[in-house]
Amino acid sequence: MTATTIAPFTRDDYAARMARVVADAGAAGLDGVLVTPGPDLVWLTGYQPTAITERLTLLALTADREPTLVVPRLERPDAEGAAGTAATAVVDWVDGADPYAAAGAVLRDGARYAVSDSAWALHLLGLQAALPRTSYHAVTDRLPMLRAVKDPDELARLAAAGAAADATYEQVLHVPFAGRRETDVAADLADLLREHGHEQVDFTVVGSGPNGANPHHEAGDRVIEDGDCVVLDFGGLLAGYGSDTSRTVSVGEPGPEVREVHEVVRRAQQAGVDAVRPGVACQDVDRAARAVIADAGYGERFIHRTGHGIGVTTHEPPYVVEGEELPLVPGMCFSVEPGVYLPGRFGVRIEDIVTVTADGVRRLNTTSRELRVVG
Amino acid sequence: MTATTIAPFTRDDYAARMARVVADAGAAGLDGVLVTPGPDLVWLTGYQPTAITERLTLLALTADREPTLVVPRLERPDAEGAAGTAATAVVDWVDGADPYAAAGAVLRDGARYAVSDSAWALHLLGLQAALPRTSYHAVTDRLPMLRAVKDPDELARLAAAGAAADATYEQVLHVPFAGRRETDVAADLADLLREHGHEQVDFTVVGSGPNGANPHHEAGDRVIEDGDCVVLDFGGLLAGYGSDTSRTVSVGEPGPEVREVHEVVRRAQQAGVDAVRPGVACQDVDRAARAVIADAGYGERFIHRTGHGIGVTTHEPPYVVEGEELPLVPGMCFSVEPGVYLPGRFGVRIEDIVTVTADGVRRLNTTSRELRVVG
Repeated sequence: MTATTIAPFTRDDYAARMARVVADAGAAGLDGVLVTPGPDLVWLTGYQPTAITERLTLLALTADREPTLVVPRLERPDAEGAAGTAATAVVDWVDGADPYAAAGAVLRDGARYAVSDSAWALHLLGLQAALPRTSYHAVTDRLPMLRAVKDPDELARLAAAGAAADATYEQVLHVPFAGRRETDVAADLADLLREHGHEQVDFTVVGSGPNGANPHHEAGDRVIEDGDCVVLDFGGLLAGYGSDTSRTVSVGEPGPEVREVHEVVRRAQQAGVDAVRPGVACQDVDRAARAVIADAGYGERFIHRTGHGIGVTTHEPPYVVEGEELPLVPGMCFSVEPGVYLPGRFGVRIEDIVTVTADGVRRLNTTSRELRVVG
Repeated sequence: MTATTIAPFTRDDYAARMARVVADAGAAGLDGVLVTPGPDLVWLTGYQPTAITERLTLLALTADREPTLVVPRLERPDAEGAAGTAATAVVDWVDGADPYAAAGAVLRDGARYAVSDSAWALHLLGLQAALPRTSYHAVTDRLPMLRAVKDPDELARLAAAGAAADATYEQVLHVPFAGRRETDVAADLADLLREHGHEQVDFTVVGSGPNGANPHHEAGDRVIEDGDCVVLDFGGLLAGYGSDTSRTVSVGEPGPEVREVHEVVRRAQQAGVDAVRPGVACQDVDRAARAVIADAGYGERFIHRTGHGIGVTTHEPPYVVEGEELPLVPGMCFSVEPGVYLPGRFGVRIEDIVTVTADGVRRLNTTSRELRVVG
């Protein structure tokens, strides 16, 4: 399956998701879910406004009314062009009117609603003022599984995105590293992701030498040198679904410490993946990976969580982190990406996207996790 | 002044803005302002995280403590690299810890804070739970002038961005329109904006014929025809500050109705600009422009507000709209952009950015507002 052979989601696909969300909300003791522009709205309707602004757009999914999309009047034609909007009522408001009154008219004071994580505080405060007896809860807190369990059509897209990222990695191993800037290799990664079908590139991390020790370094002007250890971490969207993989390579033959640290991280990543199966808590995957690194004496150098979910974004629940007790469910997709970071020297990170299967785990990235030497 | 001769803002520039915000908050009866990633944070510190995520980043500006930036530990190096962060304390929190407890430790329960409009609901709900006796207010509601009054260095950047947009318009008049797709002309606009120094292109609207009647149409596959009326509306960021201008052109000689509507909109735009001076309410600028269009019989066809502020974003307060009673203050910058939209036929919009001066108004876009004929 490639980007060009993936059929768009239909009105019925979106309607089924909306119905599922209403049911999930009821099961969680909520009266509905209020969805603002961003990944939740894309997933539920296919609608993405040109820009996310101070003008309120809100999809109200409640048990007592058909799905209703509240939009600024001048964005109504765009909204009605989305496939999923065919399965909603549309209510508009005009500049100068009170958008929270318009939204309040389709909601119920005294109810309990989940609201999109990324809804603007401006809008939440407006709703809180318009419906003062209503309680609001973050989707992540009350319905963390909202988008977390992928259906087969979504899994196919994630697999296609992963395969494209893998093809990108195999090819980037053959580009020159030594003597070029990090940004040059990052541009190669972006070009390759697009060549392999990504419509959007979200990040192309090239962390060479000491830059690799900052896990949020992107790519800079540093000229890569022979002997550098280089963290590569890249991804984006293909057919609307995310890729995200990391490998760490050595420019020329690696020294013994790079070999040692890389092997620790490789074993940690394997331990994390091996821990994945239905019913296991997210935090146990983190613990499994972390234990390997701690046992090797690098526990203080693994300074982030082990992973994050992926879907219509490259960064979403479930989070694979200490304290996250959510049990894994078949269809969940997330990264397993332990790392070790030695400030001022180098870093190593290895990352695959995995999905939970009925009885275990499947990797959506399958390139070699051995330390590869580049030129 | 061009993009290359504009000096970056310094630590002291940012420190002065932070001090001004604390004073403004006090004057508004607030104990401080809580700033999350986005334009407020860029304006106050120069810091823009790689991505805005569920991980809490929060700048606390309060009277009882030095400015304090709360960041995820793994983003700390990036945050500390921004010029304005040199003027703040930095507190970090690690994955797995409670970020709202970390933020709460630098805040005061029972206080009254303004919060960035675009702060995530997830974070606001977390703060509301961590400090239940504290009240939160949207910046737009309580401190709408936070970034609205530009200082001379900011005005110079906005003027440079406006001049670059004007140069873009003058050149695009000479590209072929008839027989090309809207997206082709949009690409020309984007190329020209970048040639003239924009580091970011935010929108390139090319609304030909009936597409011009949808004010939020961007650019599509429609092939522009001889005789079309075409709305052009484009802008982006230059040296971190916004441009935004609209002109409506005719492909070949216009018919009498296009001439008539264009002249109505031109007079409305002039009337709006003429109404701008210190002390006038924002809504009076809207009323002045709207009256011309209503008097001509097109009142129902002017379906959006007259304008919006511009600064580190292309879309911010003050809003030039009925109901907005804020008085204009020297240094404010905003668009004056009335339009008339005839569904299924064509639209006309004319837009300049203006700034309020000590005794009146100055346009930052100065290209001809007459109806120009293109080929």
